[in-house]
Amino acid sequence: MKKIKVLKDIGEFGLIDLIRRKVRREVKYPVLVGIGDDAFAADLRKGRSLVVTKDMLIENIHFKNAWATPFEIGYKSIAVNLSDLAAMGAVKPLYCLVGLGVPGGTSVDYVDKLYTGMLSACKKYSLAIVGGDTVSTRKDIVISITLLGEADRRNIIKRSCAKPGDILLVSGPFGDSGAGLFLMEKGSKRPSSEEKYLIRKHLLPEPRLKEAEKLSKSGKITSLIDSSDGLAASIKFITQESRSGAKVSLENIPISAQLKKMCKKYGNMDPYNFALNGGEEYELVYTAKPKDFKFIKRLVPSVRSIGLITSIKGIDYYLYGKKKEFKKNGFEHFR
Amino acid sequence: MKKIKVLKDIGEFGLIDLIRRKVRREVKYPVLVGIGDDAFAADLRKGRSLVVTKDMLIENIHFKNAWATPFEIGYKSIAVNLSDLAAMGAVKPLYCLVGLGVPGGTSVDYVDKLYTGMLSACKKYSLAIVGGDTVSTRKDIVISITLLGEADRRNIIKRSCAKPGDILLVSGPFGDSGAGLFLMEKGSKRPSSEEKYLIRKHLLPEPRLKEAEKLSKSGKITSLIDSSDGLAASIKFITQESRSGAKVSLENIPISAQLKKMCKKYGNMDPYNFALNGGEEYELVYTAKPKDFKFIKRLVPSVRSIGLITSIKGIDYYLYGKKKEFKKNGFEHFR
Repeated sequence: MKKIKVLKDIGEFGLIDLIRRKVRREVKYPVLVGIGDDAFAADLRKGRSLVVTKDMLIENIHFKNAWATPFEIGYKSIAVNLSDLAAMGAVKPLYCLVGLGVPGGTSVDYVDKLYTGMLSACKKYSLAIVGGDTVSTRKDIVISITLLGEADRRNIIKRSCAKPGDILLVSGPFGDSGAGLFLMEKGSKRPSSEEKYLIRKHLLPEPRLKEAEKLSKSGKITSLIDSSDGLAASIKFITQESRSGAKVSLENIPISAQLKKMCKKYGNMDPYNFALNGGEEYELVYTAKPKDFKFIKRLVPSVRSIGLITSIKGIDYYLYGKKKEFKKNGFEHFR
Repeated sequence: MKKIKVLKDIGEFGLIDLIRRKVRREVKYPVLVGIGDDAFAADLRKGRSLVVTKDMLIENIHFKNAWATPFEIGYKSIAVNLSDLAAMGAVKPLYCLVGLGVPGGTSVDYVDKLYTGMLSACKKYSLAIVGGDTVSTRKDIVISITLLGEADRRNIIKRSCAKPGDILLVSGPFGDSGAGLFLMEKGSKRPSSEEKYLIRKHLLPEPRLKEAEKLSKSGKITSLIDSSDGLAASIKFITQESRSGAKVSLENIPISAQLKKMCKKYGNMDPYNFALNGGEEYELVYTAKPKDFKFIKRLVPSVRSIGLITSIKGIDYYLYGKKKEFKKNGFEHFR
């Protein structure tokens, strides 16, 4: 039997060489110094602002190797960071730095596939891996991604500029990723095609970069965030940062047929609970003046208006006009 | 007895609030969007190149809570990243993003002190913490730092441009940090003042930003790296990237009196072994034309010339003209 090659066999510098060869490809932007030096260096285009995001994924907290392939883990680690760039407005993704912590007993093949997944997402969104750090851990894998992008500063949209009277808009659907996680936790052995769709939404999310670009460039939106901690948390963040509140009409939140079907199958669960508190969902949540809704609808036909920003703080949820309470408020670490 | 407050009690968003309040201070550079949004955004000064570095520190691999205070761990995590900027030339540190992974049972006070240490290093080197990510881990603490700096592209010095005939120069001394680690591993109960010095060199390293700036702006150095993986590894990297080799005269490597004393005390150990393979030492290793040595010596009086770059690949070590072999080649993860 062939012995499986692990990181201990090739060492850190062997791994860096492997990564370097793997990512060496057409780099679309000017790089002064890339992989293989102490740091990365590049020029930005004239008059463009730098946008930087950093998200960490921890094994057995954010992902489990029993549930996801290394390709999927790699792909998602890039996608969730791209979603943070989308949440800032019309940002052009440029460069990616990958911090990777893995135990010495990890197979070289595993790391290779992880990078294949990352590079697949990078290719799709024109991103170049240009540096990072590789270290050993005792047990769990750690993936720390830093993305650099550039934007016209007029197209950067903050969380904090929603105004009372603004309408609350979303892409969607919501709840699919949380439902996919629920199904994997349940360990459904023979998932139906609907269940496969929900699991896939959890494992391979797509960032809403194009929609974010269109919306931000239109000049019609007043605040913008993604729904990575769940829709409820996004609404909370926008209202908190904008020192306002919101009224939300649950029936207007886009919910997929697949989620509805799953909720019925497993004992009449509430799809709105998944939609609000699911988390790890990378849709857009934003605000605009009511008069601009038609314009936005023409620009992004899938937009849904789910509520109103109010001057009174706090968030109230209504189902067909009747007030509804939810216990949780999105996903939060440590809790 | 007062219950110690842990992260579980305040949750992720409570922690982010705490960090935000703690780091809210005079930000010296223009920031478009800071902590509390999906990403960070800023403008660079006109005509300046962006320099980015990313280094991860893992508990029980890079640091142990039994050996270092949270202040020291925080300080060092920033210092080692600053050293990577120094290793790129005359880079002005600007912004810092902190990725922090901690178990939910960690005390709030611990995290607070960790940030006090980080902020102390940030203040010393005019760096602003502007964003990051906080996540939970199951066991070990993970600190992932991304630093952004800017530089005139003419003052960025790579590893790869050393030429045969160049002299090999260093700051120093070398070996102190490795000796400090050795002493902590040994668990010396009543360290002498020399031993305390060595341990301190391990726990609170200072990046050589000023020297790197002077040297790079002089236009006289041909390659530059720091010695974070040990002096031997630095020489290996410079020669590999520059497709050359080196001859090193061990007796010219600066060694502290404290290291010499410790080596005698513990059974005549070889100080050059600590100097070459110690690692976690943040000195500068660089090359220049022999004719420029005098100029450099006036600029940075502590400079030492320890060898020569050769066209023949491989690195040979000599002690007073006699060849010497070393088994290890610096610190390497996974090995």
